[in-house]
Amino acid sequence: MNPTIELLKSHRSIRKFTDQPVSSALLTTLVEAGQAAATSNHVQAYSVIHVKNPDNRAKIAELAGGQGYVASSGAFLVFCADMKRPTDAAEAAGARVVRGMTEQLLVATIDVSLMAQNMAIAAESEGLGICYIGGVRNNPQAISELLELPEHVYPVFGMCLGYPAHQPDIKPRLPVSAILKADTYRVNQEAVEAFDNTMQDYYQTRKGGNKDARWSTNLAPLFDSKLRPHMRDFLVKRGFEMK
Amino acid sequence: MNPTIELLKSHRSIRKFTDQPVSSALLTTLVEAGQAAATSNHVQAYSVIHVKNPDNRAKIAELAGGQGYVASSGAFLVFCADMKRPTDAAEAAGARVVRGMTEQLLVATIDVSLMAQNMAIAAESEGLGICYIGGVRNNPQAISELLELPEHVYPVFGMCLGYPAHQPDIKPRLPVSAILKADTYRVNQEAVEAFDNTMQDYYQTRKGGNKDARWSTNLAPLFDSKLRPHMRDFLVKRGFEMK
Repeated sequence: MNPTIELLKSHRSIRKFTDQPVSSALLTTLVEAGQAAATSNHVQAYSVIHVKNPDNRAKIAELAGGQGYVASSGAFLVFCADMKRPTDAAEAAGARVVRGMTEQLLVATIDVSLMAQNMAIAAESEGLGICYIGGVRNNPQAISELLELPEHVYPVFGMCLGYPAHQPDIKPRLPVSAILKADTYRVNQEAVEAFDNTMQDYYQTRKGGNKDARWSTNLAPLFDSKLRPHMRDFLVKRGFEMK
Repeated sequence: MNPTIELLKSHRSIRKFTDQPVSSALLTTLVEAGQAAATSNHVQAYSVIHVKNPDNRAKIAELAGGQGYVASSGAFLVFCADMKRPTDAAEAAGARVVRGMTEQLLVATIDVSLMAQNMAIAAESEGLGICYIGGVRNNPQAISELLELPEHVYPVFGMCLGYPAHQPDIKPRLPVSAILKADTYRVNQEAVEAFDNTMQDYYQTRKGGNKDARWSTNLAPLFDSKLRPHMRDFLVKRGFEMK
């Protein structure tokens, strides 16, 4: 295993950080590394808000579901899908721009995800720990207002960055045989069941809090109700009409 | 700059490959590295179809817009957002599952993107080159049928993998000052205009085909018409109803 693959495979979400701040020079390096990721038709449909104001961090920590590390990590970023910049540029170059297509939502969401993952790897390669904060989609309208996001920009997720003050166990993943399929999609039920057992063992023996749970029993409450039912209206209001 | 960041920043899309195949053992390693990426609530909402059948590769190359390297690269993968596996697991664990939420489309699209980008980096760290194929969304229904994708699974993008037979110039990116914003969203028009000039210089001097173009003039035709207007109906038909 080469050192890069070793680094990738050593990922765990970090939720406790030392007081050491993330320098502005390092942050710039990380963003540059992020931007090096592939981008659909070169649109680069993303913006990153570095939330420095402590009051706003505290508010976002609350709005994201009471995640204290949003306020206490070395740095906190909000990754936005940004269709404003590329469509404004196209308009300035003479296009009669069509906005609000479903495909544009996908392009921007994928673009920002590839970019963020590159940043995550770059951060980890520098000894930082990271944690994605999907919880920014708990209250995306309030967070958009706080960050003064314009139309055609939406907050996809946040990221805590900082120097780790703990080292949690690495969480297992589904067997490759459940994920990788030759030529056609086939369900591999055995692999899923094996993974349920893997997760049961993991939860019973991991550092920092044991419980009796399996993968599927953990997922049950997540899908037993409407997941973030405000998202559709929120996106439409932002100009992502999903036409 | 550490070697990982150096690797990230040396990315270019590869579209010409040697005949050397990608071994099955290496592919497994790459998928494992992909899976190590963060995943929302541990859902791991992705499947990867390794398209081995040469006829199907030729068909997908055509369906993706006549991209010959889809058929000729060392390996070709289709990355799918897969909400079937986690929701089926939740259902088996007793949940009365609600499917078709907009948020589920986002979760699965982000999950597969983070996973794919990890795989891209792992591949590049092993000396492979990659190229994302967003063109699978040109004809997603036909490709879904070919790969026998079930409901609640959709093809997000493809990826060509193989040993590079060319080394294109690295394509410039927007200045960090256009992307990274402190506390609130502010348009940095100067940075965009500077980038238009950067791209004009790049297109006039790059290896392999020069042209007179700027970033914004390249984007104009992309947004001057409805981008992939079939995507909405396609996703609804797949069970991603964007409720």
